[in-house]
Amino acid sequence: MADLTLQATEYVVCHSLPRSPASSCLLHSSSGRLAAPLLKRLSLSTSKLNSLAIGLRQIAASSQDSVGRVLRRTRIAKNLELEQVTVPIGVLLVIFESRPDCLPQVAALAIASGNGLLLKGGKEASHSNRILHLLTQEALSIHGVKEAVQLVNTREEVEDLCRLDKMIDLIIPRGSSQLVRDIQKAAKGIPVMGHSEGICHMYVDSEASVDKATRLVRDSKCEYPAACNALETLLIHRDLLRTPLFDQIIDMLRVEQVKIHAGPKFASYLTFSPSEVKSLRTEYGDLELCIEVVDSVQEAIDHIHKYGSSHTDVIVTENEKTAEFFLQHVDSACVFWNASTRFSDGYRFGLGAEVGISTSRIHARGPVGLEGLLTTKWLLRGQDHVVSDFSEHGSLKYLHENLPVPQRNTN
Amino acid sequence: MADLTLQATEYVVCHSLPRSPASSCLLHSSSGRLAAPLLKRLSLSTSKLNSLAIGLRQIAASSQDSVGRVLRRTRIAKNLELEQVTVPIGVLLVIFESRPDCLPQVAALAIASGNGLLLKGGKEASHSNRILHLLTQEALSIHGVKEAVQLVNTREEVEDLCRLDKMIDLIIPRGSSQLVRDIQKAAKGIPVMGHSEGICHMYVDSEASVDKATRLVRDSKCEYPAACNALETLLIHRDLLRTPLFDQIIDMLRVEQVKIHAGPKFASYLTFSPSEVKSLRTEYGDLELCIEVVDSVQEAIDHIHKYGSSHTDVIVTENEKTAEFFLQHVDSACVFWNASTRFSDGYRFGLGAEVGISTSRIHARGPVGLEGLLTTKWLLRGQDHVVSDFSEHGSLKYLHENLPVPQRNTN
Repeated sequence: MADLTLQATEYVVCHSLPRSPASSCLLHSSSGRLAAPLLKRLSLSTSKLNSLAIGLRQIAASSQDSVGRVLRRTRIAKNLELEQVTVPIGVLLVIFESRPDCLPQVAALAIASGNGLLLKGGKEASHSNRILHLLTQEALSIHGVKEAVQLVNTREEVEDLCRLDKMIDLIIPRGSSQLVRDIQKAAKGIPVMGHSEGICHMYVDSEASVDKATRLVRDSKCEYPAACNALETLLIHRDLLRTPLFDQIIDMLRVEQVKIHAGPKFASYLTFSPSEVKSLRTEYGDLELCIEVVDSVQEAIDHIHKYGSSHTDVIVTENEKTAEFFLQHVDSACVFWNASTRFSDGYRFGLGAEVGISTSRIHARGPVGLEGLLTTKWLLRGQDHVVSDFSEHGSLKYLHENLPVPQRNTN
Repeated sequence: MADLTLQATEYVVCHSLPRSPASSCLLHSSSGRLAAPLLKRLSLSTSKLNSLAIGLRQIAASSQDSVGRVLRRTRIAKNLELEQVTVPIGVLLVIFESRPDCLPQVAALAIASGNGLLLKGGKEASHSNRILHLLTQEALSIHGVKEAVQLVNTREEVEDLCRLDKMIDLIIPRGSSQLVRDIQKAAKGIPVMGHSEGICHMYVDSEASVDKATRLVRDSKCEYPAACNALETLLIHRDLLRTPLFDQIIDMLRVEQVKIHAGPKFASYLTFSPSEVKSLRTEYGDLELCIEVVDSVQEAIDHIHKYGSSHTDVIVTENEKTAEFFLQHVDSACVFWNASTRFSDGYRFGLGAEVGISTSRIHARGPVGLEGLLTTKWLLRGQDHVVSDFSEHGSLKYLHENLPVPQRNTN
C-alpha cells in the first residue's frame, strides 16, 4: 500500500510538473469573461506546481506507515493481545471550488490513506481537472486500482450522492461558507467535515511590540483576504488607543486600502468615522476589517468565544504569561502567539496538504491532512478466551498491561 | 485538572462502595412489577460495585495526562513551533437505559476528560441515579465545579436538548438499537456517537478446534444474550457439516436452549428443520442464533460485509495465515481471532470504562473510553512570523522538522 501510494503520488507529481514554463499553459482554463482573482486561482503556474510537488512528496514520504499503523497494544491476559490499528475511512466525497491544484492534493491524501475518492471540482477549472484526473488514473492504473479516484461532473450528481449514506462515509466540502452550508443541508446521514465560517481574530495586547503587530496584521489581513484563515476582527487593548502602535497599524491599513468597520466600543473613541459594524460576527473575505476595543486579555477571549467561529485566533504580545493564558483559554481549532493567522493551513503545518480545515469538535480539528482521513479498528488475538473465565468466580484476571508500540518513522 | 479528576473519581468510588453488603440496598430500585432480568440490570450488587470501582480507579489513573497532552510537535521555522494538544470536546449529552452503574462510569470519563456532562438515565433506576448523581456532585463541589455533571429527568427534556446545537457538542446514546435510532433522528446538527445495531458474527473455519469453537460460541451467545456484543450469526465452513465439531456445537446450543434459525444454504443441508431466517441481518438479543454455511474464509468475509453491522466479528481457526487474512480484511470496529465476541467492551479492553461502542467511521470507533471524549487544538508559538516571508521570493523556508513528543505514562 505504501509503495503504491509513493509511486502513484510521484507519478502525478512528475507528470503534472511542467517541463518548461510554457507547457504549464496546457493545464490552464482561461476565458475573457472571468474576473482576474478567479483567473489567478484557476491558473496552474510553475510556482504553484512546484509548491504542489513539494507537498505531494511530503504526503508520499509520510504515507509509508499511515495505514495499518499500531496506535496501542494491550495485554488483556496471557496470550490475549489487543491492538488498535489505523485503517481507511472508506469512500470520501470531496467537493472543491475553482482551484484545480486541490485535485492532485486531495487525490494524493486519499491514495496515501487508502480511501476511495469521489471528486467534484469547480466548472471553471473543468479542463485542468480533467487532465489532472487522467494523470491520477494513469498512475493508479499501473497498480490495477484506476477506479479508486473518480470525477463527479454535475451539481445534480453531488446532490444525489449526498443521500447515499450506505456508500459514502464522509463528505468534505472545501470552499466558500455557502458551499459548506449547502452541503451540510444536503447530506442525509453522512458526516460532513469542514468549516462553515472563518472569523479569525487577532488580539493586540497592551504589551505588544509596535512593529510586530503591524507586520502580523498586514500579513493576516492583506496577504490573501479571500482565504478562510485571513483576519476579520482586530481586537485592540484600550491602553493602545492614541499611541504610536495604534497609529502605525491604522496608517498601514490605509496604505493597504483596507476598509475599516468599527465595533461599538471602538466607534465611541473615534475622532474619524469609519462605518460601524452591522455584526461583530462577519467574515468579510475581502480588504475589510472590523476593529474593536477590549480592556484585557480576558475580555478578548470572551469576545472571541462570543463572536468567533473557533477557526484561528491570535495574540500579539511580548508577555509570555499573557500569551500562555490566551493559548490555553481560547477554545479554537488553532490558537497562535505572534504569528500570522495565515499559517493555519495543512501545507504550512507540515501535513503535506490538507483536505480542508475543520472547525467541528469531533474527529479531526483544524487543518486536516492524512491522519484525518483514517479511522481505527481493534484486533484481538487469543487462543480460546471467553469472558466467563474473567467473571467474579472465574479462573482468570484481566492484566491490562500496556505493551510497547512500534515507533513512528519521523522525517 | 488531573488532580481534580483523580480526587473526584476516588470520592465517587469510595462513597458509592457499600460498607457492608446490606448497605448496597440503599442504591437499589425495586418493584414487584419489573421483570427479573431488568431487576438484575437495575441492582447494584457488591460485586458490580467492586468491578465499577476497579474501572473508575483505572480511569483516574489514566486521566493524569489526558487533557493537554502533546500529540505532535513540529518546528515550522526557526523560533516558530507548532504543537497539537488534547482538549475536551465540550458539553456531552449521554442517554443511557436502566443500568445505574453507567452513571458513575460516564461521569468519571467526562470528569477525567474535562467535559461538561448532561446525563439522562432510565426511569426504572431513578432512585439509584439520584443518589449516584448526588455523590458525584458532592465530589465535584470540593473543587468548585459541582454543576459540571447534571441530571436530565424527562424524555421531553432530551428532545429539547437534541436541538441545542450551539450548546451541546456530542450526543451519546447508550442502550437499545431503538434508543440510538430515536436519538439519531432527534439530533439536529449535533453529532451522535453510537451503534445502531450489534450484529456480531463468528466464522468457524475448516481448521478450527472442536473444543475451542464450542467454548467460544457458548460464551459469545449464552453468557449475556441481550448485550450488543453477543453473537447473532454463526458462519460454519461447509467441510464441518456432519463432523463431530458441528454436532458438538449443535448439542451445546440445545443444552443451552438456544433457538436456531437456519440461513438459506444451511437449511438446504438439514435433516432436522429449524425455522428459516426471515433476514440474515437480525439482532436477536436473546437465546436465538442464525446459522449459515460458507465455502471459504473469503465467503465468510463477504457475508459479514453484506449482512453485518461492523461491530464485532470473530474467526475461530488454528491456521494463523487464515486468521490474519480475516483480521486484515474484515472491516469492522472489532475483529477477533479465537476470542469471544463479548470482549468487545471498554472495561475488558483496559480503557477503564466506556461511554459506548461506536460503529461510525469517524472520530472514535469500537469501545469508546477517555480518548474518545477528547479533541485537539493546534498551538503555534512564533516571534513575528508572517507567511509572506515564506513565499517564492521570501527570505525563509519551511523546515517542518518533527520534534520529540513527551512520552505518555504507561501503567
